[in-house]
Amino acid sequence: MTTLTSREWALASRPVGMPKADDFQMLTSEAPAPADGQIQVRNEWMSVDPYMRGRMMDRESYVPPFQIGEVMQGGAVGRVTASAHADYAVGDLVSSFAGWREAWTAPPEAAMAQKLPQTPIPDSAFLGVVGMPGLTAYAGLLEIGAPKEGETVFVSGAAGAVGATVCQIAKAKGCHVIGSAGGPEKGEFLKSIGVDAVIDYRAHTDAASLTAALADAAPKGVDVYFDNVGGDHLQAAIAVANQGARMPLCGMISQYNATGPTPGPNNMIMAVGKSLKLQGFIVSNYSHLQPQFIKDMSDWIPGGKVQFRETVHEGIDKAPDAFMGLFTGQNLGKMLVKLA
Amino acid sequence: MTTLTSREWALASRPVGMPKADDFQMLTSEAPAPADGQIQVRNEWMSVDPYMRGRMMDRESYVPPFQIGEVMQGGAVGRVTASAHADYAVGDLVSSFAGWREAWTAPPEAAMAQKLPQTPIPDSAFLGVVGMPGLTAYAGLLEIGAPKEGETVFVSGAAGAVGATVCQIAKAKGCHVIGSAGGPEKGEFLKSIGVDAVIDYRAHTDAASLTAALADAAPKGVDVYFDNVGGDHLQAAIAVANQGARMPLCGMISQYNATGPTPGPNNMIMAVGKSLKLQGFIVSNYSHLQPQFIKDMSDWIPGGKVQFRETVHEGIDKAPDAFMGLFTGQNLGKMLVKLA
Repeated sequence: MTTLTSREWALASRPVGMPKADDFQMLTSEAPAPADGQIQVRNEWMSVDPYMRGRMMDRESYVPPFQIGEVMQGGAVGRVTASAHADYAVGDLVSSFAGWREAWTAPPEAAMAQKLPQTPIPDSAFLGVVGMPGLTAYAGLLEIGAPKEGETVFVSGAAGAVGATVCQIAKAKGCHVIGSAGGPEKGEFLKSIGVDAVIDYRAHTDAASLTAALADAAPKGVDVYFDNVGGDHLQAAIAVANQGARMPLCGMISQYNATGPTPGPNNMIMAVGKSLKLQGFIVSNYSHLQPQFIKDMSDWIPGGKVQFRETVHEGIDKAPDAFMGLFTGQNLGKMLVKLA
Repeated sequence: MTTLTSREWALASRPVGMPKADDFQMLTSEAPAPADGQIQVRNEWMSVDPYMRGRMMDRESYVPPFQIGEVMQGGAVGRVTASAHADYAVGDLVSSFAGWREAWTAPPEAAMAQKLPQTPIPDSAFLGVVGMPGLTAYAGLLEIGAPKEGETVFVSGAAGAVGATVCQIAKAKGCHVIGSAGGPEKGEFLKSIGVDAVIDYRAHTDAASLTAALADAAPKGVDVYFDNVGGDHLQAAIAVANQGARMPLCGMISQYNATGPTPGPNNMIMAVGKSLKLQGFIVSNYSHLQPQFIKDMSDWIPGGKVQFRETVHEGIDKAPDAFMGLFTGQNLGKMLVKLA
């Protein structure tokens, strides 16, 4: 048993607006041999996710803020390199919340670690399509959106890790699916996974233009809008929504870097007359769906109904770049950092 | 059997912003003796309601717009004066949708007429607390808001027909109730019906001040917000909402007379992190609750748990004044016009 050296990322300063490289600070620490009840893990993959932007602010939220000078947290997948815990053996694959670092030693519970099953699915997918983003897509779409066969589902951020999974589950449920994403490469990707109509939001610089594009793409109106973006997308979805439409609010990436409050949809009044349901959610409220989610994904992935893409940055030193790239739309599918 | 002369109100022009007297035009017509299958009714009461403002606009909605030059529609209660329909006898009390007029002759179905039961409740209450506004309050609060004992319920437009009923049902369910209304007279009324804390919104001219007042009144946060007002009230409620709060969106009277789109809440992003549910509804989706509603109200009203107030204008010629008064807060409880 040896000590592992771990390069790790701390928050150097709270970002104002778009995060910058010097908001991050690399530290180095040691992951020692495990004491009784602990495991030592070398991370192979770490996740960067839009929600982390919220934890960089000093405000009350559903998760506490990152502290300046302390190593950040996030999803990671790695292998046990030493174990002093009865349930874990060297070589076990574990997911944990001890990302933003190369290695760690801790009791599994303290790192929110879980032993992962042996599957033909690649390890990295446990941070994406069969991990937190996948469950987010599954829970929000099926529990809040509750799409019925033949209905129209509109998804923003459709080429991202959550969005692309939403699109494919909606197709598996027999829906007409419209995806919004930025640029032709993402549009091609969306068509390749079966999305019926693609909106390139970069071609629509105001809400009226986006609304017109959505109305064109959704001649029967929108029954479910899965919101990853907020802002103009939410306003357009409300405008084109059918009576009784459901809108799972998963994230509002258009606003994460706003330096002040941003106006909400200017047509909220339509929510009354159209009997719309707008419902925010966080994936941790839906962990009871995990068994059914894994079961369904185990059908859909090998059967080709759910495909996934990854955008991979190599090496811990690239982690801030990967994170910042989320907000300029640089990822196709799940954004990941490969650590080992 | 005689012909009745009926004075009636048509829309003379579509209001721009706040409705004005010359947007309305009085006509006179005859309600003839009923033909086979028809009834002749003299209206005793007619209702004016905020939702009618929407029907004055030429836009697609859940009910078709009023047409210029045609007599408007709305809730009314009257007595049968002649009948050629087997189910109706002279003297029967009927509710109908044939308001904005003194008398009418039609098949009952065409006027959406219903024979009302003999009760100790005054006739006018069938346009208010045991009518459409009462069912609106009941359905929105209990089905969407789903308040639990001990929770905090915030109601805007709290001294109106819907709002005052919401407040009292919430008290009957054991909740801490905060009501917002304009001016000291309404505040006294709300306290008299058991509301725990009153916010006079006229003392709070911006969203920040209203939010601070709500935070003071709701030290444990808001679990249910019943929205009759929209605008700053909705933004304040989102700011002070607890995790998992429910927000039935019943109306947005602050915006009914807006001449352009008005910005939505600038903190919609909180709906994600707080897992909020914002759900618009219209009472016609909840007619299946009618039997239970009448049963509960028949307990609550005689038992004093639900009291009601009315603001009455006398005579058909006052109907536009009554309607316009809704938007300047002139009503305490249900706004009505007494016709006979």
